Amino acid sequence: MTSERIWTAGLLVIGDEILSGRTQDRNIAQIGTWLNLQGIRLAEVRVVPDDLARIGAAVNALRTAYDYLFTTGGIGPTHDDISVDAIAAALGVGVVIHPQARAILEAYYATRGGLTEARLRMARVPEGAELIPNRMSGAPGIRVGNIFILAGVPHIAGLMLEALSGQLEGGKPLLSATIGCRAPESEVADLLGETERAHPGCQIGSYPFFREGGVGANFVIRSTDAELLEACRADLLARLLAAGLQAGPEVV
Amino acid sequence: MTSERIWTAGLLVIGDEILSGRTQDRNIAQIGTWLNLQGIRLAEVRVVPDDLARIGAAVNALRTAYDYLFTTGGIGPTHDDISVDAIAAALGVGVVIHPQARAILEAYYATRGGLTEARLRMARVPEGAELIPNRMSGAPGIRVGNIFILAGVPHIAGLMLEALSGQLEGGKPLLSATIGCRAPESEVADLLGETERAHPGCQIGSYPFFREGGVGANFVIRSTDAELLEACRADLLARLLAAGLQAGPEVV
Repeated sequence: MTSERIWTAGLLVIGDEILSGRTQDRNIAQIGTWLNLQGIRLAEVRVVPDDLARIGAAVNALRTAYDYLFTTGGIGPTHDDISVDAIAAALGVGVVIHPQARAILEAYYATRGGLTEARLRMARVPEGAELIPNRMSGAPGIRVGNIFILAGVPHIAGLMLEALSGQLEGGKPLLSATIGCRAPESEVADLLGETERAHPGCQIGSYPFFREGGVGANFVIRSTDAELLEACRADLLARLLAAGLQAGPEVV
Repeated sequence: MTSERIWTAGLLVIGDEILSGRTQDRNIAQIGTWLNLQGIRLAEVRVVPDDLARIGAAVNALRTAYDYLFTTGGIGPTHDDISVDAIAAALGVGVVIHPQARAILEAYYATRGGLTEARLRMARVPEGAELIPNRMSGAPGIRVGNIFILAGVPHIAGLMLEALSGQLEGGKPLLSATIGCRAPESEVADLLGETERAHPGCQIGSYPFFREGGVGANFVIRSTDAELLEACRADLLARLLAAGLQAGPEVV
């Protein structure tokens, strides 16, 4: 293992609709993938309902435990959009209308019926916050301290991440390589553990699949060092083939 | 609001592959939906990496905060499958081979190469645990106290839920009705809030969509009381139509 600083992030997904099962979350995978590219590890996710106290408690737990905290959901114009209020309360600051957000919304709604009071809700930010641009729907994301407040709609959250790409301090991206194997993982469990122990600085995850045509597993090797990663990958592949197993590219 | 007891559950999703974005989680939505049918609310989800201490801390936080705790992932035969060890340590109990699990695995692997040491790992349970049947791959889920330890593969987790259906004490299922509306949610924000306030015992969530052919939102009304739900649904629809908006069935 290298002793380099590992940058970490927490993610708080806010919304009754995720907990009820109505909406399939896509932001965990989207943000986890994007964070890897920034050299930041997604270290924990929590999903909480639209409840001021529950959001606030999770915000304070996660923003102090990790370098960064991302939140998704609850920043629209309706009564169930309470993320800004909850986060401001958690930080002990007030909620203010951000002048630039107001100007963005005024321009956006100039041809769409004007800036009503409900729409102006989307210009409310915790005191001291900056905006994260959103080139689609006008309503911006919000950065306050180490907290990044994003939309819940995955496509819009993605546009906000795009605006943040390359802007955050991070370490080396976590690299990965995958080997697919058409044998039950229980047959290769010992071999996997031995290979991981022989390659410090690499972790091997085993992800079984069960489908028509047989069972098997994909083995994902992860490291921040490209040479260590390749050495581990080549060794694992050689061990699997030497054991008489059918191994090769990832099975998708 | 009724003053009936509300039964709650936490869910702990265990796995580096979810946090890295490699694997799109499907268990949150699956378990949230299933719990609703059992009359239990999914109240919080956490996702943590394959790390004994991190799993243990989350287990103890969630099992004490809610009536039930479900976990997914980390119960296979490989070195990264550490959920049983982490949960046993969190509970302060030992890990034992469950005789019935051993018998199930012996039968399952009788024609598949025999019960190796790696495969026997899948018979390990926290002391005092019972099994949750899994009619697909042999390896059972585990119940210990108020904790339900399920597989990470969504199809197998689903089979374990099926085995638990109707077995858990719960309250009234949370019912829902959905109205789709082809207007930006910012136009109806006030109307939504007023409707919710006029119907105690009902919550209204607003879930915007942005797609070709225009923007809009689906409004989801939730209640444990079918009559209150229907009254709120009919009132909301009437108010939307009275406002000259295009409202009707859910837009999917």
